Amino acid sequence: MTRRRPGQSALTTPRNEKDRVEIQSGTEDGITLGSPIALRVLNEDHRPKDYGGGGKNIDAFPRPSHADWTYLEKYGVKSSSGGGRSSARETIGRVAAGAIAEKYLKVAHGVEIVAFTSGVGPEHLFPATKTHPTQSANPAFLELIDKVTRERVDEFLPVRCPDETVCKSMAELIAEYRDKADSIGGVVTCVIRNCPSGLGEPCFDKLEATLAHAMMSIPATKGFEIGSGFGGCEMPGSIHNDPFVKAPAVPPAEANGVAPARARPRLTTKTNNSGGVQGGITNGAHIYFNVAFKPPATIGQAQQTVGYDEEAGVLEAKGRHDPCVIPRAVPIVEAMAALVVMDALLAQSARQSARSLLPVLERTVPVAESETKLSNGSR
Amino acid sequence: MTRRRPGQSALTTPRNEKDRVEIQSGTEDGITLGSPIALRVLNEDHRPKDYGGGGKNIDAFPRPSHADWTYLEKYGVKSSSGGGRSSARETIGRVAAGAIAEKYLKVAHGVEIVAFTSGVGPEHLFPATKTHPTQSANPAFLELIDKVTRERVDEFLPVRCPDETVCKSMAELIAEYRDKADSIGGVVTCVIRNCPSGLGEPCFDKLEATLAHAMMSIPATKGFEIGSGFGGCEMPGSIHNDPFVKAPAVPPAEANGVAPARARPRLTTKTNNSGGVQGGITNGAHIYFNVAFKPPATIGQAQQTVGYDEEAGVLEAKGRHDPCVIPRAVPIVEAMAALVVMDALLAQSARQSARSLLPVLERTVPVAESETKLSNGSR
Amino acid sequence: MTRRRPGQSALTTPRNEKDRVEIQSGTEDGITLGSPIALRVLNEDHRPKDYGGGGKNIDAFPRPSHADWTYLEKYGVKSSSGGGRSSARETIGRVAAGAIAEKYLKVAHGVEIVAFTSGVGPEHLFPATKTHPTQSANPAFLELIDKVTRERVDEFLPVRCPDETVCKSMAELIAEYRDKADSIGGVVTCVIRNCPSGLGEPCFDKLEATLAHAMMSIPATKGFEIGSGFGGCEMPGSIHNDPFVKAPAVPPAEANGVAPARARPRLTTKTNNSGGVQGGITNGAHIYFNVAFKPPATIGQAQQTVGYDEEAGVLEAKGRHDPCVIPRAVPIVEAMAALVVMDALLAQSARQSARSLLPVLERTVPVAESETKLSNGSR
Amino acid sequence: MTRRRPGQSALTTPRNEKDRVEIQSGTEDGITLGSPIALRVLNEDHRPKDYGGGGKNIDAFPRPSHADWTYLEKYGVKSSSGGGRSSARETIGRVAAGAIAEKYLKVAHGVEIVAFTSGVGPEHLFPATKTHPTQSANPAFLELIDKVTRERVDEFLPVRCPDETVCKSMAELIAEYRDKADSIGGVVTCVIRNCPSGLGEPCFDKLEATLAHAMMSIPATKGFEIGSGFGGCEMPGSIHNDPFVKAPAVPPAEANGVAPARARPRLTTKTNNSGGVQGGITNGAHIYFNVAFKPPATIGQAQQTVGYDEEAGVLEAKGRHDPCVIPRAVPIVEAMAALVVMDALLAQSARQSARSLLPVLERTVPVAESETKLSNGSR
Repeated sequence: MTRRRPGQSALTTPRNEKDRVEIQSGTEDGITLGSPIALRVLNEDHRPKDYGGGGKNIDAFPRPSHADWTYLEKYGVKSSSGGGRSSARETIGRVAAGAIAEKYLKVAHGVEIVAFTSGVGPEHLFPATKTHPTQSANPAFLELIDKVTRERVDEFLPVRCPDETVCKSMAELIAEYRDKADSIGGVVTCVIRNCPSGLGEPCFDKLEATLAHAMMSIPATKGFEIGSGFGGCEMPGSIHNDPFVKAPAVPPAEANGVAPARARPRLTTKTNNSGGVQGGITNGAHIYFNVAFKPPATIGQAQQTVGYDEEAGVLEAKGRHDPCVIPRAVPIVEAMAALVVMDALLAQSARQSARSLLPVLERTVPVAESETKLSNGSR
Repeated sequence: MTRRRPGQSALTTPRNEKDRVEIQSGTEDGITLGSPIALRVLNEDHRPKDYGGGGKNIDAFPRPSHADWTYLEKYGVKSSSGGGRSSARETIGRVAAGAIAEKYLKVAHGVEIVAFTSGVGPEHLFPATKTHPTQSANPAFLELIDKVTRERVDEFLPVRCPDETVCKSMAELIAEYRDKADSIGGVVTCVIRNCPSGLGEPCFDKLEATLAHAMMSIPATKGFEIGSGFGGCEMPGSIHNDPFVKAPAVPPAEANGVAPARARPRLTTKTNNSGGVQGGITNGAHIYFNVAFKPPATIGQAQQTVGYDEEAGVLEAKGRHDPCVIPRAVPIVEAMAALVVMDALLAQSARQSARSLLPVLERTVPVAESETKLSNGSR
Repeated sequence: MTRRRPGQSALTTPRNEKDRVEIQSGTEDGITLGSPIALRVLNEDHRPKDYGGGGKNIDAFPRPSHADWTYLEKYGVKSSSGGGRSSARETIGRVAAGAIAEKYLKVAHGVEIVAFTSGVGPEHLFPATKTHPTQSANPAFLELIDKVTRERVDEFLPVRCPDETVCKSMAELIAEYRDKADSIGGVVTCVIRNCPSGLGEPCFDKLEATLAHAMMSIPATKGFEIGSGFGGCEMPGSIHNDPFVKAPAVPPAEANGVAPARARPRLTTKTNNSGGVQGGITNGAHIYFNVAFKPPATIGQAQQTVGYDEEAGVLEAKGRHDPCVIPRAVPIVEAMAALVVMDALLAQSARQSARSLLPVLERTVPVAESETKLSNGSR
Repeated sequence: MTRRRPGQSALTTPRNEKDRVEIQSGTEDGITLGSPIALRVLNEDHRPKDYGGGGKNIDAFPRPSHADWTYLEKYGVKSSSGGGRSSARETIGRVAAGAIAEKYLKVAHGVEIVAFTSGVGPEHLFPATKTHPTQSANPAFLELIDKVTRERVDEFLPVRCPDETVCKSMAELIAEYRDKADSIGGVVTCVIRNCPSGLGEPCFDKLEATLAHAMMSIPATKGFEIGSGFGGCEMPGSIHNDPFVKAPAVPPAEANGVAPARARPRLTTKTNNSGGVQGGITNGAHIYFNVAFKPPATIGQAQQTVGYDEEAGVLEAKGRHDPCVIPRAVPIVEAMAALVVMDALLAQSARQSARSLLPVLERTVPVAESETKLSNGSR
């Protein structure tokens, strides 16, 4: 929660929203009870009059690239906050819920979810090149996602891009837009490590589909790509294909309170252009994806637009604004990823658990010799 | 259906799948009865032994970048077809269902959904340039999506890229990969015109989120972007923002059997960097998006990989294969778009219809003068 | 809310739970905003130590016929309140949500939902007789449900049985059980008037099925019957069958703020043994049903039972308890009925609204003459 | 399937519907593949003209107590079969799907689901008496449901009431109604034995609620009661309450192909007035419930009714009809019960499986001594 909230630095919005969470139900003495966990976060620094020059302006103009107009088209009403439920403030609930999922995934399966800033405007951590048309073809990228931790990412506050040089350029770029009362977009990259294999459904609810759904539901997102992504379209199949290799041995469980090592698949893949998902189902390799965020719609410049009365006019925004949401979006992306994995894990647990009570079938795997091993292993 | 099926040209897979649809239930004398419409398509040209060199190979190796391995990890069984339900053949059901949704959307709302090939490997219809970092900033793109029809797209068969020069380059590129027994990916662009405003939910089921979900559930997709997309991240907010303008007058309904002109929103936007969706809700402007498809995993070359028994070996694929799925993916993208819009439309219809029976509220819109107009108009 | 809360009389539980509702989100100036409406009710009179004789007892014994044991079996944890989420206190949320649905149904469709106490222990408002094996065969019953109002029911507080003699017997019976530190069950009957026709799905979500689901989800319910119910099983089909008759003319809308008269079906049925639902779909006639409530499990007598430690012992319950929940269950039944009808109405509104935009078909109704009328009428 | 189909005797409908099932997808060599299992049953003896006297009558009159009228009100269309999807023929899909669930439940958990005819018209297997106001208070009933098997029930074909005397009376009653060209309703009782504890949700999806939903979705049902049911309302709480007792030891697994004995709860209850469910969650005891079926609406007598044209007239039904559906409803009730239990089991499996990977908590159960045992046992 603390990582998401605004006011973290001079680069992000100066609103001082403390975002303190109050647990209303579902736990007792620190233990969940099975009942729904209700969390309440009061907005302690709400100043609606700040938008649109004193409240009058916002009543006359739907703000460009905000949800004011579409919300009105949909519901036929308008709240004083403009876009009603479409406010990005709702992401606080996602981060709170995601924190619970993350804790479970870490303890029970050793899952690690780490996101970081990989692009701000034209500055990219791993720009496409002839040799590396896409991240997944870049060994430096693969090495980074194999090791990067949240602690490491937060060493690069406020930008959260885990590379000194690029991070500095990004910070300068954001400062520049802030000074121009303008804004800029960017890209968040996220990796999920140690995800169990077998998650995701083969048809409509492929894991990449539910991940895309979750990410594109975050306010201000414009794109999603997994594995080789858009760049992968430019690679020949013979190079893009992801042959299987024997998986490395799993290190023994550590004793210091860390989750015990879970059973891992016997095979893994070589290139991981797949991004950890094949045919909609996880294969146990790192899942990684990019999410594109547009430049924030609230800017400090006056904007020529048209009002609710169909008359043209100028909307002046004197309020607080955030020149770049990418750094604060990092924990939101992590939280949504955790929720998607948690859902898929519960669905697959039901299946595996049900199957584990049936007698072993003799003919479910192709190679006779490995059959018994696999049948047991996959339970 | 005919537009999706293989065997359309020498560039696509030579499998002769007739894909004839048999209606099993739900209609009588050409009229739907309200009961579920069951469609059956028999696979009349199924040759499982063709994959993997005579059926032996496929039993020993999980095919790289296919779902063979993950399906086995998930379900603990393996079908003779390899990836079980993950076969792209299931998209035939999507196209059949989409056709019904499309027909309704066209007749009742005049909605037009047109997709086309916009990229094959490194060949792009609208490549990013300094001036136009993204499609949405390119007037030629905006003009194309305003006019393009399915008939026009199909004049460029088999590639379905509606530009003579680019189409020719793409066709040559595909032929080249076919001759090398290799494959190549690409991008499909889709536009939805005349979509009613107010569709999509403000939070988790934003229209861009459900569209992303639908598109990323199509086999072989690796990315999705809407409106300005990934390129939009590089634009300043002051340029990216999408001011409102008065909407043009709606032309009167035509008499020749075409759907009557539907009520359209009073305002529209100037740049449409938003891609027709703001805050997750449609604003009535053209919705457009790109979908990235990886190169097909089935190639004619031998591949070094590891078998189910963890031993390395060579998988030879002598069977039929399709060097590029983009042209055939076009109608699948259209069908999934139609299903997403149809779902959102029904949800919004329930809301609007329920609201229309309540007395008009005096205080639901900001500007006094336009209030009555709007309240009525929005119903 | 006030009608449900305890402490209404000496016959119901003396707990003084004020049940004040605080609206946390979703409205502004008394108008809903389209965002979720969050309601919060604080439990201001919570005394967990009162159950089970000082808190010790409840820690040693799962209370008979409560959810203490099953909740523990399900979740593996135990809250200090015993049954965790299974407490009947959760019904307050149902009444609050139902109140919103009821208001809409009343204003938009003139729907009236009235429940009342029809049985307490062996005392029945309409006991089965030879002549009238079931309520639906009893003209007095049909007359009552045609007219009864909530105001009328509340004249019979605290029992809420709208018949002076029977109500008095019931009150005496409840007092008797209260004095014996015992409890008694009963039956609530509910009628839904002016429900639009066409609600409910033809197969799994028949309206009687979703009503049964809703009613059987209320704590302490043991049975549900609609229309002729269990008694109807004993009637011959030739008498049970519900022939059609021409519906009476709809009276013109009244001017005094009452909802305008809605379009009603042209036909209605004669016996209404169907209870307003045929083939899972409403026909516009009164929907009526009974819900059975068991005697409250919390009684003032000591009970011989077995503890968590598998040892037999005596559970003494010195706390407050309610000898009969029927009177307080009345508004809960009404609320759940409103929620079921509201859901079905929204689903059907989507369908009707979608259909209304299609050209009229010439062959959708059997009798040529009435075809046009009906096609128009049913939209 | 065979148990459900008509034509089983002179007492049920003479239609010779063979109801042969063709598996269209989802299995290979007798093993399920994880993909949906599609089953197709062709109606080989369809004679729509038989209803309503030559097809003309049915076009003029909505059949009383059928779905003809409500289906038309809902969808605005009418199929030649009258009630469209509301035909009871759709239950064949339920029986087919239920058979798969039953097989799993039997093999994996030893679950036994047995239904039987317990009432035909006024003839009841366990009529309410002063001593036994409800089945659950009748030791003979409790003994029967503890032992009864499907094989035993089918010895009493065609009536399926497992008591020689009562069965004979029922058969005579049905024959009498058949000869009068009339029909009669009845009650089916169902018991679920060896159901795991912990199934069902504590609030809206209580197991009794989803069971009621499932049962009331079967065509022609009018009521549902579980455990003590409607009769239980008449019992004092002090007698109705269901104290806990130590559960009997589980017999060791048998060797002859029978499912191994599963872990059972340490406690069970004494009266089982609860019907195996407390607070919406199963406690491991026998689940039993009654389902009321109305007399079939199709009778051989002429009926005075009103036509689609609002004119009164006489509907003559010369076709085949079934004087009592109870015997054939038995396998449908069993199938729906299996589907409900299967769903609840999968949901609970996901929870248990997820929880089993967390470290054991020290404070989740009340009694220190039994804590470890329970925590382990409940996983």
